Amino acid sequence: MKVSELGEFGLIELLAKIVGQPKGKQVLIGIGDDAACWRTGVSTQIATSDSLIQDIHFTLSTTTWRELGWKALAVNLSDIAAMGGLPQYTLVSLGLPGDIEVASVAELYEGIEELARLFDVSIVGGDSVGAPVVMVSLAVVGKAQKNQSVLTRSAAVPGELIAVTGYLGASAAGLAILQGVLELYLKDEETVGTLREAHLRPHPRVVEGQALARHGVKAAIDLSDGLVGDLGRLCKASGVGARLFTSQIPVHPLVRNSFGGDAIQLALSGGEDYELLFTARSEVIDRVRGAIACPVTVIGETVAEPEMVKVIDEHGNELSVEKAGWEHFVKGR
Amino acid sequence: MKVSELGEFGLIELLAKIVGQPKGKQVLIGIGDDAACWRTGVSTQIATSDSLIQDIHFTLSTTTWRELGWKALAVNLSDIAAMGGLPQYTLVSLGLPGDIEVASVAELYEGIEELARLFDVSIVGGDSVGAPVVMVSLAVVGKAQKNQSVLTRSAAVPGELIAVTGYLGASAAGLAILQGVLELYLKDEETVGTLREAHLRPHPRVVEGQALARHGVKAAIDLSDGLVGDLGRLCKASGVGARLFTSQIPVHPLVRNSFGGDAIQLALSGGEDYELLFTARSEVIDRVRGAIACPVTVIGETVAEPEMVKVIDEHGNELSVEKAGWEHFVKGR
Repeated sequence: MKVSELGEFGLIELLAKIVGQPKGKQVLIGIGDDAACWRTGVSTQIATSDSLIQDIHFTLSTTTWRELGWKALAVNLSDIAAMGGLPQYTLVSLGLPGDIEVASVAELYEGIEELARLFDVSIVGGDSVGAPVVMVSLAVVGKAQKNQSVLTRSAAVPGELIAVTGYLGASAAGLAILQGVLELYLKDEETVGTLREAHLRPHPRVVEGQALARHGVKAAIDLSDGLVGDLGRLCKASGVGARLFTSQIPVHPLVRNSFGGDAIQLALSGGEDYELLFTARSEVIDRVRGAIACPVTVIGETVAEPEMVKVIDEHGNELSVEKAGWEHFVKGR
Repeated sequence: MKVSELGEFGLIELLAKIVGQPKGKQVLIGIGDDAACWRTGVSTQIATSDSLIQDIHFTLSTTTWRELGWKALAVNLSDIAAMGGLPQYTLVSLGLPGDIEVASVAELYEGIEELARLFDVSIVGGDSVGAPVVMVSLAVVGKAQKNQSVLTRSAAVPGELIAVTGYLGASAAGLAILQGVLELYLKDEETVGTLREAHLRPHPRVVEGQALARHGVKAAIDLSDGLVGDLGRLCKASGVGARLFTSQIPVHPLVRNSFGGDAIQLALSGGEDYELLFTARSEVIDRVRGAIACPVTVIGETVAEPEMVKVIDEHGNELSVEKAGWEHFVKGR
């Protein structure tokens, strides 16, 4: 079987199978969550790594070098955010064709540094190697908040509410604009700029993730691959099912205004919003609402049937979702 | 200026300049050493990341998937070894073309797992993304030995001896055989097999690095880019110079026997031996010799003139070294 047939998530499961359960020791969370966790003497360390590859995840015709650097760190910080952790250190591993301008690489570094500074993350290591295309691979190490356990994908239980931070669909809409595959109804410059920025300079919900952990949330995942796909992964890890109500989904206002009937699909399966999806009882969600500045919207509920994710439209009918998530090996994407 | 003109090490210096000195906090060693170090509550954490890119660092026509996995971890463990640390956790980030067989990826994972088991390293995370060529990017996190400081590139002082673990030149000889660019005098299968293995399955000196730190060594670097180049980097970081005596260099016996006049060049500038180069006073080196199983050979001495590395042949003449180190962006390599 080819990698393209098995897909990214199948490969991760394969790796988990080969590696097996971490043997006792200090590993709290191994392969299969947003980030790995292990215990040191006094604290819980959290680590994650993620790569952006030219012409798979970005194209230099629409992405500036500075934006690329920002985003490469952002996707990793979002994984730490999904654990409710504090990011602290990052290692930068670059693959670069020889004909790239040094000034471009400097801008890339500056983009990483710009976001790192916002969250007090130190860039502690870097290596550069030759490569046929640009690849930016970052690892981020951090820690759990003091006396707080981390958020995991596997902690959801039936009968909880499902909630999400912020608005959805803006990143996918921005990508659609960059790729010229979807037309806007209202093509004003401000809308284009905002949606483009949502795709190229996502803001990881680091502070919000920490607040979730402090206020009693146990289960969370970040929305990198699309709402339905990521919710499916959380459900699978927790052994629960979910009902998702499209009428409650906080579609980004600019997406709703500009993409009409496509808006809900962009929000359901577009991906790369880097918002946090979490489950909790209603009183916990109320506490979270009081603690963080961004919108928190209840969009569904967990149910006992394992792994069954149903998307219900405003008439109570089950909706078919075109694309369950972003699969990097699938052709044409 | 193009990346190919500035080179890998120039880029790392550029990154260090943009990032600046880590602001106070816990960072002990940032960009520019074999690995980064920071202090947590009770211990010193060490972290490094390194990537192998298809057709830059390896070709699938001569490297098995299992060997590729082994080596991708080995090069990272070697960086931890050069700090005298204990590797503990690794994150695996893969870039894969869609037409790769899943069975091949499984072998790659098994190669990583095989070496990880030898050093009790846990594979705690993994992600896979699409890519035009195979890229294997690993990050390794570990810690310093209890009550021991780490080895650094910057701790050498004038008047120390320069020593190296093991034998040199076997990896470069193996590569030359794989590439068919150098002829062996004696082409017996065992020699070919041993040299090939030296290149494809290097054994990182993790245990030896820890012994160096325990027995009073302060300055070390791992030999990834070639003896002369890596010694130059250690000297630059320490603000010292060095005299290297070719007659004392422990050229691998099979390389000496099979490559005649090319043998010393392979040992001086071939690279990828993943031995440890370190400096210390003679009594410290004696203690190290008593503590580790592999050969420890004195090959030169540090001098006060900053950054001047002189290579002296058996007649006392200064030798010109064809290639100071492995520069990944230099064309033709």
